[in-house]
Amino acid sequence: MKLVRFGPAGREKPGIIDSEGKIRDLSRIVPDISGEVLAKSLPKIRKAKINRLPLVKGKPRLGPCVGNVRHFIAIGLNYADHAAETGSAIPKEPIIFSKAPNCVSGPNDPIMVPKGSAKLDYELELAIVIGKRARYIPSEKEALSYVAGYCICNDVSERVFQAERGGQWMKGKGCETFGPLGPWLVTRDEIKDTQNLRMELTVNGDVRQSGSTRTMIFSVPHIVWYCSQFFVLDPGDVITTGTPPGVALGHKPPKWETPGWLRPGDVVKLSIEGLGEQTQKVVPFK
Amino acid sequence: MKLVRFGPAGREKPGIIDSEGKIRDLSRIVPDISGEVLAKSLPKIRKAKINRLPLVKGKPRLGPCVGNVRHFIAIGLNYADHAAETGSAIPKEPIIFSKAPNCVSGPNDPIMVPKGSAKLDYELELAIVIGKRARYIPSEKEALSYVAGYCICNDVSERVFQAERGGQWMKGKGCETFGPLGPWLVTRDEIKDTQNLRMELTVNGDVRQSGSTRTMIFSVPHIVWYCSQFFVLDPGDVITTGTPPGVALGHKPPKWETPGWLRPGDVVKLSIEGLGEQTQKVVPFK
Repeated sequence: MKLVRFGPAGREKPGIIDSEGKIRDLSRIVPDISGEVLAKSLPKIRKAKINRLPLVKGKPRLGPCVGNVRHFIAIGLNYADHAAETGSAIPKEPIIFSKAPNCVSGPNDPIMVPKGSAKLDYELELAIVIGKRARYIPSEKEALSYVAGYCICNDVSERVFQAERGGQWMKGKGCETFGPLGPWLVTRDEIKDTQNLRMELTVNGDVRQSGSTRTMIFSVPHIVWYCSQFFVLDPGDVITTGTPPGVALGHKPPKWETPGWLRPGDVVKLSIEGLGEQTQKVVPFK
Repeated sequence: MKLVRFGPAGREKPGIIDSEGKIRDLSRIVPDISGEVLAKSLPKIRKAKINRLPLVKGKPRLGPCVGNVRHFIAIGLNYADHAAETGSAIPKEPIIFSKAPNCVSGPNDPIMVPKGSAKLDYELELAIVIGKRARYIPSEKEALSYVAGYCICNDVSERVFQAERGGQWMKGKGCETFGPLGPWLVTRDEIKDTQNLRMELTVNGDVRQSGSTRTMIFSVPHIVWYCSQFFVLDPGDVITTGTPPGVALGHKPPKWETPGWLRPGDVVKLSIEGLGEQTQKVVPFK
């Protein structure tokens, strides 16, 4: 199933993509696509006669595909080539940091340049949405049973805030609009192999990131298992799993004439096989 | 006002401490002590005739004094002496990290030793509870107007997970039971000077931390202002502001015969002037 949230920011309704790719209104079945619904009501959605649900007219805004995210977890340097381009060693264990939960935004909402930003960057990532409370999962084998589904995340980053202002990374990871999630929450059953999905990110049509989840250092099941050894994962928690090479931070002259930092007016497009596409326009601070 | 949440975990009711130090049930006035209530209903609580509200009988469990915390922010190395005892440089700007939101617990709930823990530590801290959405606060002067109140936080930490397992600190900061908050949320008006509060933490009666918020490197107003430059603060968000010296991590022989890590059976007591007292028993992993 492909679940969506549509409508104005803060007042999104739950929806599902029908066999023709159109949005059907799920409000009759569930109040939202959120942790509680993912934990309890996926079977109820599965039983619904989708093509009899009200068709949503026009092209509404899409909200983040999961509502009311509480813990927005991120894995750092999870692709060997990306670690290399940033001059970092390959991690021996997953690096975990967090993004502010209120930086979550819709898949096609604008990215706002934060006040004082100098090095605004993108990161195309596969995100995991948790569907069941997970506490010390015994092994990787069981890990996927705690997953509701997947979506694209742009782990938008401000590199000065992240790395040049002292201490931990989260200063550059949680600014407003830094967490586009969606377009859909694709349920786990639709993604047969999380470790073999093509990924691409373009800026103004130029391919910047082109890769595959195949080259992750730590796989999706390993990450879910690993996180559960340190803290409890709750339904609706999101774990974004790191980015392949090609971020602006990795650009070295003379390959790039100008640094690749995002600037107002730029258009970023992200896609991951099976998970759809996002498009964000970069807008100035306001 | 001193606001509390009482009752079994997950089903706490809102309460207020009356003039005799007893809990009065606030359920008739507000549904909970949470971000939404702090943003909208403090004037309503202030108007209530407290001594006519139902008296809560017995000694109920106290829950965390703020419910449904979404962003649990923490400031690192915010006391010069503590930075020194950990062998760290004094930070030039606040160091920000986060704790998992679901590690929040009641002020007197047990601290559970996490699976695989070797270096379990305590951190006595003053925590700020946000009462109004804060985005790019213009200056420190306005910062306190975004604060609902204060409480004690034990920023419980596992030092191996925090510092010896690669990457960022949060692996050792968000384990289950690592965030006791309370006993009360003391509203801002009751704390005339956030930078002059005595603090003490004992383990089994021995004084381990004894200090004052006077020696913070970055003050409460500075921290609130600073955080708002990087992410939006929402009502109910908690910022815990760092710990004075005396943590187990700082113990050096021969001053201490054995390392001061917490072990099952230990009893930790925390107090901050005006904010009450917490008592936690350390219990084994289960």
